[in-house]
Amino acid sequence: MNDSHIFTGNPLDRGERERRDEDWLRAQEKAGTSRFLPFKNLDPLLAGETDPELAWLTADDLDRLGIDATPVFLGRIDGTSHFAVDASGLEGALGVNESHRFEEARAAATILSHPEAAIVAQARAQLDWHLRHGFCSVCGQPTEPLRGGQMRKCPACGASHFPRTDPVVIVVVSDGERCLLGQSRGRLNRLGWYSALAGFMDQGESIEEAVRREVGEEAGIEVGAVRYHSSQPWPFPSSLMIGCHADALTTAINRDDEEMADVRWFDRETVRLALAGQHPELRVPGPIAIAHHLIKAWALGDA
Amino acid sequence: MNDSHIFTGNPLDRGERERRDEDWLRAQEKAGTSRFLPFKNLDPLLAGETDPELAWLTADDLDRLGIDATPVFLGRIDGTSHFAVDASGLEGALGVNESHRFEEARAAATILSHPEAAIVAQARAQLDWHLRHGFCSVCGQPTEPLRGGQMRKCPACGASHFPRTDPVVIVVVSDGERCLLGQSRGRLNRLGWYSALAGFMDQGESIEEAVRREVGEEAGIEVGAVRYHSSQPWPFPSSLMIGCHADALTTAINRDDEEMADVRWFDRETVRLALAGQHPELRVPGPIAIAHHLIKAWALGDA
Repeated sequence: MNDSHIFTGNPLDRGERERRDEDWLRAQEKAGTSRFLPFKNLDPLLAGETDPELAWLTADDLDRLGIDATPVFLGRIDGTSHFAVDASGLEGALGVNESHRFEEARAAATILSHPEAAIVAQARAQLDWHLRHGFCSVCGQPTEPLRGGQMRKCPACGASHFPRTDPVVIVVVSDGERCLLGQSRGRLNRLGWYSALAGFMDQGESIEEAVRREVGEEAGIEVGAVRYHSSQPWPFPSSLMIGCHADALTTAINRDDEEMADVRWFDRETVRLALAGQHPELRVPGPIAIAHHLIKAWALGDA
Repeated sequence: MNDSHIFTGNPLDRGERERRDEDWLRAQEKAGTSRFLPFKNLDPLLAGETDPELAWLTADDLDRLGIDATPVFLGRIDGTSHFAVDASGLEGALGVNESHRFEEARAAATILSHPEAAIVAQARAQLDWHLRHGFCSVCGQPTEPLRGGQMRKCPACGASHFPRTDPVVIVVVSDGERCLLGQSRGRLNRLGWYSALAGFMDQGESIEEAVRREVGEEAGIEVGAVRYHSSQPWPFPSSLMIGCHADALTTAINRDDEEMADVRWFDRETVRLALAGQHPELRVPGPIAIAHHLIKAWALGDA
């Protein structure tokens, strides 16, 4: 379970040692064997209709298409260097292959193999960070990528900037018989959809404290023991979902109306039916999301 | 154990709902009951020689001292608003109280009570982020704090920016009889000091994957099962230490010379003596660091 979430299982060796050598990187960017994955508005290029896969291009392809953004070094598989490259400026089809198309990243994750979905997660998070960090937050001047995109440096003030990963706690709270699920206002609220409570961690708190704060804020429920379950990278844009189970010390819900559309207790049988897609009203997230697996573990008594 | 690390146990209610009201915040910044903790170069103001505590000032104190930086809202205790404020521009002593002095933050954490050390962790991380994010990383223009410092907004391009917390995996790997400890080159390498292996998480990986990658990079050891132990906020400047134990699948060390000065296997008896400060050569981190507790749990057979 712990290692089977979508977006895990990335086969790339990120090349921590190799990427410190800028000359080596420049040579890899030009090498005929290197592979480049274009993204348009953070959506990856896919090939194949019936059995879709990532559409890796060559350095020659990029030249011909006029894609000249600095590529981000993802890492290596069997010695072959892999890069992601922003192609948002491209108009129309790529013309490399008829089956090529940019696929919405979340949809792509559900039709690609696990290892390829994990590559999309890494590449999308890295590209998003570079697209939003062209300038130095310390002094406002333009920054430059280094180490194949693992950092950016400001030539004006010397500040170093590193890609960010935002830890999010996501938790299924139980009172023993029932579990607490909510509808947040921020997301698409189709009738009947409920999920585990979740929120970004604040600065200066532990995972266990963040769980207690979030559940207190969103539902007004006091939480005792917190148990870590598993984690999942979530590249929208760059979160680390830290999945937990927790014990409720109180049961009276007092929800934050501004953030939550609804918060409710659900019994095990109701949740089991919803997981199987057989409940007439309740819908829960599918297996792409760690929430599904947290809810399932609770419903099976493994929480 | 899980909740007892230094920098946890913060008594402040961060006021997620209240801080969205800018008028309320302005009133709290002027209220006579509000308390302000000044920091100089990210070191907090302390009072008292024998029983040191945080030296909270009033809005009047700030006026008199000419401290005019925008305060960061930390939260409330029993309805009283608490703020942190950057006073790095101050010359000389504060003159409020003879025992007042700015204490190096890490040293302060070891002499303050747990709840006050946790407040320092939150305040230091927040102030550091603001000091390094005066400009928009998207467009390079000046940004403005909002929600009491929980975000910054760019008036030029409209981008929202949020404080960052950098997840770090820290792990004690064991082969059953021995545990793997290392000396990193980046830190102060006093002879004989060894600690758990640690590293920043990359984008697009799970906690378990980050543990395996870091141990592979730093020590060349292959890791099987990973078990979460506990977590600790670490405000230098703003990390979340995610503490784990893990099982080694191999034992031959192949360390990264550039990052690690040494990596070695240590047997349980050696580690127990070091934890008690009784080993002639080996030194391990003290209880301020989660590394101490991870090593101790392993030495006691609780890992």
